[in-house]
Amino acid sequence: MTTKHKVIFDTDPGVDDAMALYFAMAHPDIDVIGITTTFGNVTVQQATENAIYLTRLAGVSIPVAQGAAVPLSKKPGSPPDFIHGKDGLGNLPSRAEVEGVAEDVSAAEFIVKMARAHPGEITLVAVGPLGNLGLALKIEPNLPKLLKNVVLMAGTVTEPGNVSPVAEANVWNDPDAADLVFTAGWDLTMCGLDVTHRVIMPASAFLGLATEHKHVAMDTLSHAVDFYSNFYQAIRPELGHSCYGHDVLAFVWLVAPELFKTKMGRIRVQKQGEGNGQTMMDRLGLFYPEPGWEADKPETRVCMEVNAPACYELIMGTLLSDWLKPALLK
Amino acid sequence: MTTKHKVIFDTDPGVDDAMALYFAMAHPDIDVIGITTTFGNVTVQQATENAIYLTRLAGVSIPVAQGAAVPLSKKPGSPPDFIHGKDGLGNLPSRAEVEGVAEDVSAAEFIVKMARAHPGEITLVAVGPLGNLGLALKIEPNLPKLLKNVVLMAGTVTEPGNVSPVAEANVWNDPDAADLVFTAGWDLTMCGLDVTHRVIMPASAFLGLATEHKHVAMDTLSHAVDFYSNFYQAIRPELGHSCYGHDVLAFVWLVAPELFKTKMGRIRVQKQGEGNGQTMMDRLGLFYPEPGWEADKPETRVCMEVNAPACYELIMGTLLSDWLKPALLK
Repeated sequence: MTTKHKVIFDTDPGVDDAMALYFAMAHPDIDVIGITTTFGNVTVQQATENAIYLTRLAGVSIPVAQGAAVPLSKKPGSPPDFIHGKDGLGNLPSRAEVEGVAEDVSAAEFIVKMARAHPGEITLVAVGPLGNLGLALKIEPNLPKLLKNVVLMAGTVTEPGNVSPVAEANVWNDPDAADLVFTAGWDLTMCGLDVTHRVIMPASAFLGLATEHKHVAMDTLSHAVDFYSNFYQAIRPELGHSCYGHDVLAFVWLVAPELFKTKMGRIRVQKQGEGNGQTMMDRLGLFYPEPGWEADKPETRVCMEVNAPACYELIMGTLLSDWLKPALLK
Repeated sequence: MTTKHKVIFDTDPGVDDAMALYFAMAHPDIDVIGITTTFGNVTVQQATENAIYLTRLAGVSIPVAQGAAVPLSKKPGSPPDFIHGKDGLGNLPSRAEVEGVAEDVSAAEFIVKMARAHPGEITLVAVGPLGNLGLALKIEPNLPKLLKNVVLMAGTVTEPGNVSPVAEANVWNDPDAADLVFTAGWDLTMCGLDVTHRVIMPASAFLGLATEHKHVAMDTLSHAVDFYSNFYQAIRPELGHSCYGHDVLAFVWLVAPELFKTKMGRIRVQKQGEGNGQTMMDRLGLFYPEPGWEADKPETRVCMEVNAPACYELIMGTLLSDWLKPALLK
């Protein structure tokens, strides 16, 4: 019998965040014991509202703690409305009224308290800018020993970036926090654009899910994916009316690591200049004269390749399973 | 009939610089009309001495103008004695006395004067840190229109760096100068580690050249390559007693561009942090929110792949041809 992965999900929902959340809630080997929110795809207030909305809509009352509103050092920017919609879920025409409010502690505090209460048991899956993990490390420098492991949707090594030719959006949104995370010394896995750009999710497949489930949560996800796919079709016409899986890949790695080829190496984050927010990986493990690349720096497990068809089948098969409960409406 | 390429060779000899210089002098389609020197593999004084020595040893009195002694902004470092030898030519046991002294103008001045005298005719092949081109651009901002084209051995796009996980040594030695060069707007081609790490030159092949030619210039090159190959064998045992072609590839592109697959794109140079000296390329030509990646930035032709066996054959065949003249000894 598999022990379930006890997961705190750090997220900025966001369409692919919603996809990831529902995959995690649907998968029999994952137990989402808490959600922490951050600015990123939307404001942190909207992220919190969406996390509460999405969980209750699917019939489960998971605790939600609100986190970082702004980056650690970088000047705050504006959320990318044109990608996820102003509401983060593709501009929903209306929302049902659901039960539930946010926890009365911040995300960083929530993470530290849970990690201290369950040392060595919790997996942190983070798919937004990494401010909450950065702040939690400042409160509890021993956090890397208290968490079981950390899985990120973040960064890129050889694949071009999506906010600059070299930078991925989550890392670029808070490069200082990301560099803290990549040098903290936990069991760390990075699912970045090297693999998330391989997994294409057609909007039509989510319409199919909605038709099968006849459930407001799936209607909501399908609406969001449709909007998100419009964005991707505009910038990458070769994708058709589809989007990338992005955030959901972090959970796929957790339950099916055999679908990935990984590589260990030191990662540093560029915090200035035209390369701002780049995850730079030492792929060879050599000695280098440039400061910051000393051999004692911790290594990250980086997903470099993915079995995309198997990954897609796992995601859609899991979402199609019988997991939805009646929505917790007011 | 092919018109010869009129070339000014900007160089920091250096073992692979010596290989490149002799290839250029040996090739029937190249006319090296001047050499400009820079710090890099050695001090600029040593680079000048070596440029004079190598040309006169091969029997040709090419003008040599001494250039940048230090980077534009970066703090100067020490030359890598352990790679090229303290003298830049693998610690030669002795040197013959040759004729010749450096020009009485600096490298940047020499480049500008020659470009003004022969507008649209001169190819600049630069294989060291790019301070001389940076200084020349400050003296004559119209230089991109006065030169025919510029070919660099510099940078890397997808191949790991050689001074950090992301940076190539020439660019890293003077990132500020390199960024000036990549944004100046000339007809610019970059041969970087993406192709130079594909072309492996065995030390034994240069011993063979020396045996065939029975000429002090080839004895000198073979000695230098032997030392350089010791370095590479130590850090990359899989190469055997061999080295990379590096600088010579810039001249191979000039005379045989059909051996390369190239890609056009904007390049910026990272000038700070752990990514210092990285050449970052926009491979997709998308819109990006990060400043510095505006669509009006000029593009560079980047060599991404090379037909390595054909490249090797061309180099060795050219060096084996009958091109050496009696050394110009004192």
